[in-house]
Amino acid sequence: MPLINRLAIVGVGLIGGSLARILREQGEVGEIVGIGRGAANLQRAVELGVIDRYEHEPAIGVAGADMIFLATPVCTIASITAEIAPFLAPGAIVTDGGSVKEEIVAACEPLMPPGRHFVGGHPIAGTEKSGVDASFSTLYRGKRCIITPTATTDAKALEKVSRMWRIAGSEVVLMDPVKHDKVVAAISHLPHMVAYSLVNAVGDYHGCDENILKYSAGGFRDFTRIASSDPVMWRDIALQNRTAVLEMMDFFAVHYGELRRLVAEGDGPGLEDFFDRSRQHRESIL
Amino acid sequence: MPLINRLAIVGVGLIGGSLARILREQGEVGEIVGIGRGAANLQRAVELGVIDRYEHEPAIGVAGADMIFLATPVCTIASITAEIAPFLAPGAIVTDGGSVKEEIVAACEPLMPPGRHFVGGHPIAGTEKSGVDASFSTLYRGKRCIITPTATTDAKALEKVSRMWRIAGSEVVLMDPVKHDKVVAAISHLPHMVAYSLVNAVGDYHGCDENILKYSAGGFRDFTRIASSDPVMWRDIALQNRTAVLEMMDFFAVHYGELRRLVAEGDGPGLEDFFDRSRQHRESIL
Repeated sequence: MPLINRLAIVGVGLIGGSLARILREQGEVGEIVGIGRGAANLQRAVELGVIDRYEHEPAIGVAGADMIFLATPVCTIASITAEIAPFLAPGAIVTDGGSVKEEIVAACEPLMPPGRHFVGGHPIAGTEKSGVDASFSTLYRGKRCIITPTATTDAKALEKVSRMWRIAGSEVVLMDPVKHDKVVAAISHLPHMVAYSLVNAVGDYHGCDENILKYSAGGFRDFTRIASSDPVMWRDIALQNRTAVLEMMDFFAVHYGELRRLVAEGDGPGLEDFFDRSRQHRESIL
Repeated sequence: MPLINRLAIVGVGLIGGSLARILREQGEVGEIVGIGRGAANLQRAVELGVIDRYEHEPAIGVAGADMIFLATPVCTIASITAEIAPFLAPGAIVTDGGSVKEEIVAACEPLMPPGRHFVGGHPIAGTEKSGVDASFSTLYRGKRCIITPTATTDAKALEKVSRMWRIAGSEVVLMDPVKHDKVVAAISHLPHMVAYSLVNAVGDYHGCDENILKYSAGGFRDFTRIASSDPVMWRDIALQNRTAVLEMMDFFAVHYGELRRLVAEGDGPGLEDFFDRSRQHRESIL
């Protein structure tokens, strides 16, 4: 018997499509219903075998589903949850893939009718591509998935969501939503803010007689790959995780300011120490 | 007849060793003499067939060489040039691979005796590895090599150095040394300063009950790969290219400050525009 009888996925793109693919591949889902606005993308998802059928109305699409995965932009998750809540089947579990958790969990948990459960989640996986055509069944393999239960989270619902992500190949980590938001602000949101700023700084620099970007080599391109990420998605993340992002941005600014001072003062030993500390930090995670 | 009769390479590591390999592979060099302090590394280079023989004293090693390539840390290039200048054969050309050019070219050109020539160069290639074992013949293929002639550069020497890098597979770009230093400050030195600062900021963050770095995924590791670069090399680069590095660091800080303000104010349209500009800049170089 599969883990999930009927899975409803709101937002059938890279994240939603990849989860659908692996659950089907593993035989752990009966039927998959895709929910979204764009008929072309949903039709494509049917052709690819990612979903079985689709609906445009979330309230209709979730009918009879025992698991609902919200894979839409972070700013839409609470409103979609409010929309579907009255139509959830008894025992249904709603979970999401949003990369910000405190606001979402605080908003969605109280929306659940008795016997329906919300469990916040965040699979730490992705590429800079999007859309169902970019989805693939091994996206989550070997990655971490952070699940953010609270004091009121239903234990069985938590276990079922955890099992789903383990089946997808991920290592499940349980974490407080507030801590989650700090962690991702540091390891994901801050690097994006830095990369976007770096590309704009170099791209806007007019201290030479031509655009300096044309001299960029592979190193610069690799380093700034994440600055090609979806601007709308990152606008929403910056807004939803504002407090933690600002805290980390200011923490970066302190270190950057320290380095600037070392360069300005021509402090050789200080520079070597700064760079060496960084290398040691980095090697600790390899 | 090969382009180079006898090539002397001071510093037989990734950069020097890779040039030796490709010139030999292409049959464009008669004999290759390695020069350095460490006997073990030089012996290894002989075993690998990268060099034919070696000397520890630069003044002795350059005897009879028509091309001398200085592949040592940027802070040593001027002093080595001063050391070898009196021992250069008539017509000998000294060139380098240092990633900073204004100071080096200004210091080295006047050191040349009559009939000997200095030509500044900077192959834009490398990996985070070092040592002759890391060298390979295709390192320079498809990469840019910036050559920085001045008003007094000998035309034939410039042509021979340019040919050498084209044979190595690189696209040769001629550039004023001052402009070169600004360009590399923007596309290489600034990204390193940013990456080192980012890793230190995240690594030193203690706002959670454990080290956040352990949650970093592939994206963070890719983004910060350059923060594993050699601390001593980057200390020297920061010191030698201080003016341009500071200018670019401050230019970055302006953009980063703009982004911080947009986040703090919760300015959605402004954030989307900032991220979108960055994506457009980046796509212009792909």
